[in-house]
Amino acid sequence: ELQPLMANPVCETTEKKKQQPQGPERPNSHQKFKAKLMQWVSYIAGDMAAFGEWMKGQFILLQILDWVLRGAAQVMFVNNPLSGLIIFAGLILQNRWWALNGFVGTLFATISALIIGQNRGAIANGLYGYNGILVGLLMAVFSNAGDWYWWLLLPNIFMSMACPIVSSALASINSRWDLPVFTLPFNILVCLHMVATGHYNHHFPQVLFQPRTSMHNLTWSELDYPKLFRSIPVGIGQVYGCDNAWTGGIFMIALFISSPITFAHATIGSAVGMVSGLALAAPFQNIYFGLWGYNCVLACIAIGGMFYALTWQTHLLAVACAFFCAYLGSAIANVMSTFGLPACTWPFCLSALTFLLITTEIKNIYKLPLAKVTYPEKNLIYFWKMKKEERIAKQRKEQEKDIASQQKKEKIIMAAMEMKGRQHLDACTVDVLQEESTQNRPDRKSEATELNLTQL
Amino acid sequence: ELQPLMANPVCETTEKKKQQPQGPERPNSHQKFKAKLMQWVSYIAGDMAAFGEWMKGQFILLQILDWVLRGAAQVMFVNNPLSGLIIFAGLILQNRWWALNGFVGTLFATISALIIGQNRGAIANGLYGYNGILVGLLMAVFSNAGDWYWWLLLPNIFMSMACPIVSSALASINSRWDLPVFTLPFNILVCLHMVATGHYNHHFPQVLFQPRTSMHNLTWSELDYPKLFRSIPVGIGQVYGCDNAWTGGIFMIALFISSPITFAHATIGSAVGMVSGLALAAPFQNIYFGLWGYNCVLACIAIGGMFYALTWQTHLLAVACAFFCAYLGSAIANVMSTFGLPACTWPFCLSALTFLLITTEIKNIYKLPLAKVTYPEKNLIYFWKMKKEERIAKQRKEQEKDIASQQKKEKIIMAAMEMKGRQHLDACTVDVLQEESTQNRPDRKSEATELNLTQL
Amino acid sequence: ELQPLMANPVCETTEKKKQQPQGPERPNSHQKFKAKLMQWVSYIAGDMAAFGEWMKGQFILLQILDWVLRGAAQVMFVNNPLSGLIIFAGLILQNRWWALNGFVGTLFATISALIIGQNRGAIANGLYGYNGILVGLLMAVFSNAGDWYWWLLLPNIFMSMACPIVSSALASINSRWDLPVFTLPFNILVCLHMVATGHYNHHFPQVLFQPRTSMHNLTWSELDYPKLFRSIPVGIGQVYGCDNAWTGGIFMIALFISSPITFAHATIGSAVGMVSGLALAAPFQNIYFGLWGYNCVLACIAIGGMFYALTWQTHLLAVACAFFCAYLGSAIANVMSTFGLPACTWPFCLSALTFLLITTEIKNIYKLPLAKVTYPEKNLIYFWKMKKEERIAKQRKEQEKDIASQQKKEKIIMAAMEMKGRQHLDACTVDVLQEESTQNRPDRKSEATELNLTQL
Repeated sequence: ELQPLMANPVCETTEKKKQQPQGPERPNSHQKFKAKLMQWVSYIAGDMAAFGEWMKGQFILLQILDWVLRGAAQVMFVNNPLSGLIIFAGLILQNRWWALNGFVGTLFATISALIIGQNRGAIANGLYGYNGILVGLLMAVFSNAGDWYWWLLLPNIFMSMACPIVSSALASINSRWDLPVFTLPFNILVCLHMVATGHYNHHFPQVLFQPRTSMHNLTWSELDYPKLFRSIPVGIGQVYGCDNAWTGGIFMIALFISSPITFAHATIGSAVGMVSGLALAAPFQNIYFGLWGYNCVLACIAIGGMFYALTWQTHLLAVACAFFCAYLGSAIANVMSTFGLPACTWPFCLSALTFLLITTEIKNIYKLPLAKVTYPEKNLIYFWKMKKEERIAKQRKEQEKDIASQQKKEKIIMAAMEMKGRQHLDACTVDVLQEESTQNRPDRKSEATELNLTQL
Repeated sequence: ELQPLMANPVCETTEKKKQQPQGPERPNSHQKFKAKLMQWVSYIAGDMAAFGEWMKGQFILLQILDWVLRGAAQVMFVNNPLSGLIIFAGLILQNRWWALNGFVGTLFATISALIIGQNRGAIANGLYGYNGILVGLLMAVFSNAGDWYWWLLLPNIFMSMACPIVSSALASINSRWDLPVFTLPFNILVCLHMVATGHYNHHFPQVLFQPRTSMHNLTWSELDYPKLFRSIPVGIGQVYGCDNAWTGGIFMIALFISSPITFAHATIGSAVGMVSGLALAAPFQNIYFGLWGYNCVLACIAIGGMFYALTWQTHLLAVACAFFCAYLGSAIANVMSTFGLPACTWPFCLSALTFLLITTEIKNIYKLPLAKVTYPEKNLIYFWKMKKEERIAKQRKEQEKDIASQQKKEKIIMAAMEMKGRQHLDACTVDVLQEESTQNRPDRKSEATELNLTQL
Repeated sequence: ELQPLMANPVCETTEKKKQQPQGPERPNSHQKFKAKLMQWVSYIAGDMAAFGEWMKGQFILLQILDWVLRGAAQVMFVNNPLSGLIIFAGLILQNRWWALNGFVGTLFATISALIIGQNRGAIANGLYGYNGILVGLLMAVFSNAGDWYWWLLLPNIFMSMACPIVSSALASINSRWDLPVFTLPFNILVCLHMVATGHYNHHFPQVLFQPRTSMHNLTWSELDYPKLFRSIPVGIGQVYGCDNAWTGGIFMIALFISSPITFAHATIGSAVGMVSGLALAAPFQNIYFGLWGYNCVLACIAIGGMFYALTWQTHLLAVACAFFCAYLGSAIANVMSTFGLPACTWPFCLSALTFLLITTEIKNIYKLPLAKVTYPEKNLIYFWKMKKEERIAKQRKEQEKDIASQQKKEKIIMAAMEMKGRQHLDACTVDVLQEESTQNRPDRKSEATELNLTQL
């Protein structure tokens, strides 16, 4: 059975290729261009299933590179090597030492997953890499030993290799509720490393985090609107620990390539985080630095279309989750600072898990089975298909029922007619029965069915 | 399927009405008075099922008021709008601003539960309101901004509306072990709000809690017995964050109206908490203030008759749980103070969940299925009924078995007699068989059965 | 159903007695001696099943003594009263007051388990005692009131009696994943007691633990190699809170008597802990004191042969788990010191649970069902037996399949021959069919099967 780590997209081969216009009618140049474009888009957007399929026959090192790139993008739930490549470009722009650590982390996490015999399909989708890249990156970010302190690679490799172990263990627990593990392994392992060594360690000193013990200044007139606006891409960049707005912008491009819905929710999430920071009177520096955004970005993506099918109800739920996540983020940051730790992505994990555990009687809040989760657009198609099939099944059932009741009525009438013939029954009873049977005509019923379905 | 939040009492219509004496014999005036009284008691005691049934046909706002009142009382596991009304009276006596916040909290929690499509029956029983009232009340109690700071209503409403979400999520987890969620959503959300803002916040400052860092004075001669005695009602009042002994007394009345067993265990719990405080050398002020009582009150109610059927074994278990809860209360208060947080009702939740998770081979410790939990008296009747049915089923089985074995023996004898007639079998074998069959007479067996049952 | 506390060894009666050589050939004196020795070893090694069986008929107090001794040894997963006796000897050597508290703890935990109606088999295997001995011992170790402070026995008895309650509750949760509760009840209850009272308590003051707030000195030239070497037995001793190397040595003997595999992994674990301490730049005093060892000892035993069948893969996993546990140990020690608490055995519990939750596609990492866990050597025999049976079943299936396909082929040939006879079919088709059937000969298939099995 498959490991329900984050999602287990079953690679389906290239349905998109067939989207090209065919047939006898000759398309004009504009249509031709559009079709060509659509085809090209289908090759690089979504989860690049065609590419993944083609990769299966390639050399193993090339395959691992594909898995590493997908792993890098899976942090944002994007299963796309091109996005991964762009993200690595963004990281290099931010800091080359961090990028190296991120790469090492992803690589060793993937290798470790192969060694401890995890599911090959999940590995190929980068589901064992995304915790690795975060572990590698953030260990470098929070290290107090400065850049290019090569010894850091040792705990980096150790912790990256522990990722699949923790992932597998958590998946055993979360799978009982059909929940993904999100970035919990990363959170656990980075906090483990940081608190095990601490600020006062000789080998691996950490950046000092301390709890707030006094009132900070807050002058609303000093609020810098351009910086506030820039905090939106910065918030997206902070998912990978990057405070550079350009890097954040590059990440946004990477998201847009794979899935515009993901891109939209990431932006909304970052904005919600920024607003929450203002509402809770956070120091402006923290808001500018994107610390209020990155958890909301991830939470908003996860709820808005990724694990729930996107409807306007789940869209609102995603926004609510982003607000809840921002609140939780502030709380967890304060609690963790007591131990000299950053908040990592605990707020995102806890809030998204909470919102995924909800049970409701509203049919439009549909949580996809974990094995069916791919990317928002495809999830939506799956949801529509499922709903359509349900509707058809319902209609067919109704019709069969109507036909059956019609036949029954006719039988009764026939029997009554016979009876009449034999026993000279008066006509009035038969009329009543006929009237009844017409009241139950299929057309009326199906109208009612239509009505019910539109309410959904 | 129903959400196992705290309990899912299935509203049964007014069996109590039939308790009036009927029949040809004419009752004297004393009996008449007693019967009348019983009838009236049945209308206001227990879960007021008749009233709830009648409410279903009323205007929606009136219904919501009923749900809010039930929600207010459900904090103490009481599903009774009259108790809820009395509790609100007690709250107004304590502090009107707090009472207002409590009301707003219950109202918005209930509305939010309706919006996110929770089970209507659970909402009607106040199972989505009780966390709301606690969130509203305690956010007002722990706010450092003073009374009538109207901005507080904003986070109050936000957190109250988050209650059903957290409740639903926790219920998804706890339902796997058929456990209620207790006041965990309240604990989570109030701690969330308090630690997210903290003492040094500009918008929503919190009361300062700090860990103990030195020895406090403890002179046993200074122990004030009247205050110690008064700490019992104060402990009950502290369930709602009230330190007024009169308010606590009013709450006790509210409990007594609905369920005397609940009332008794609340009192015992509060006393156990007070004794534990003395045993662990707590500062007297904390004991007088009821801080050692309120968790024990809730734990003792929960175990003593609410989720376990009340027998003397579960009564002892409830007392043990209260002691454990007091210990845990002190521990959690110390841990939470590190983060500037109060203990809330974490100790109650954790100790009650622990004691509900026990598996045992003792048959008299019977945990009711969550869907059958109503109030201690009715639970007890359910338990007795179930035991009686079991006994009868067992007896019938035994008798059938005996009859079957008797018939078998007789058949053998008959066969042997035939054989004898045919093959001139000597009489001695038949005698042995007859002896055997008389040793297995039903009357003896049923005696043994009785003996076994009384041992239970 | 049985409580999955740590392991539920089903006592099997004395298969070992039959290990004596039998038959007509007369053994020489050397063989005789060896056989005699083997027999004697079988009486005192492993879980002393023969002794346990014999005990069942004895006086209850004697039985309880057996259970208490087994409980004392179960801390190290050893179900052996002789090991328990040796361990108590080691404790007396360390500190008589601690040993007394440990005994009281084990005794009352066992009695409490009887009172609350726990499974008799689990009690008899000491599965309710091992948390008791740790609670008793460590409450005495961490008490700041000095030795022979008799009042300490009160909370000691209370907490010991709470052990089976917490054990039972945790087992209800962990059993869903077929996991043992390890020493979680001990961790919970000792932390509960320590944090509830704290350093500044009048009745039960605790030793002061404080978080590190400055750089400590670390001069590598000062490293004392004899002390470093001695830290290996000290680390084993620290499982029971003992810092005496001789006591640790005695514990090693106790382990070796019951199970050499356990002994080996304990030693490896302690060494791994020591190395990790050096790698993470821990103060040398902590390493010498065995604080880096005891968790790794337990983790290494648990993974290396106890809950996984011992193969070289699980052996490596055990070493990896020990390293992970050491890291986690440092992290938890730092976190707990914030609350004035020691790390207890939380690191062991969490790391071992994590490693037991892993799911993998490697067949040689076989987690035993909890009900089948006894001691490493017997577990291994169980695993080999199971594998052998699987192999035989597979071979038989293959053979049957081959025979069936052979028969099918022959039938086709026969039919073809008949056809030929009738329709003058040319011979070539038959040849092809015959060729096919020979390609599928059973001997070739079974060779392939052998090959597959050796790869496992």
